[in-house]
Amino acid sequence: MSGFRHVVLIKWAEGTTTGQQDELAARLGELPAVIPEIRGYSLGADVGLSPAAHDFAIIADFADQDAYLVYRDHPSHREVVDRYLTPITAERTVVQYEP
Amino acid sequence: MSGFRHVVLIKWAEGTTTGQQDELAARLGELPAVIPEIRGYSLGADVGLSPAAHDFAIIADFADQDAYLVYRDHPSHREVVDRYLTPITAERTVVQYEP
Repeated sequence: MSGFRHVVLIKWAEGTTTGQQDELAARLGELPAVIPEIRGYSLGADVGLSPAAHDFAIIADFADQDAYLVYRDHPSHREVVDRYLTPITAERTVVQYEP
Repeated sequence: MSGFRHVVLIKWAEGTTTGQQDELAARLGELPAVIPEIRGYSLGADVGLSPAAHDFAIIADFADQDAYLVYRDHPSHREVVDRYLTPITAERTVVQYEP
């Protein structure tokens, strides 16, 4: 495989509700339809097997770094991040690599 | 897609050499040949675009949680973790989800 992969692991802030988590997932899930640069988009909540795990994963695939930057700076993405993700994030870990 | 996905993001310990990083990647890359439960295996070093990023990603796909547990506890995997990964790890973040 080639391309550019953006991997984000989130730890929810204390007091975050499942309603907020579901809303975030729903809003993120709308992004591939409005940002054609997204080649693959996978979201999921941690299953709870590992006690030290973070809570939520976002894995986004792009053709290249430029396509990722379009996503990163896209107003629809920024809105989801600012309104639905940042307010419920305690920790955020990211790696970007070329698969 | 269905299954069970294991996502690990690593921050290298200070003083880790590229030789150690390459050795780890090579050893991890041998695991799919010896652990048939691994359905997909993707490794990569962070490209350096985001200053706060971790350094290395491991994304492993399995048919289900039981198949992941075979991998987790497999002696070949444990050996790579104990000998090549843990000694150069400062921080490790994980999420396991059903894609």
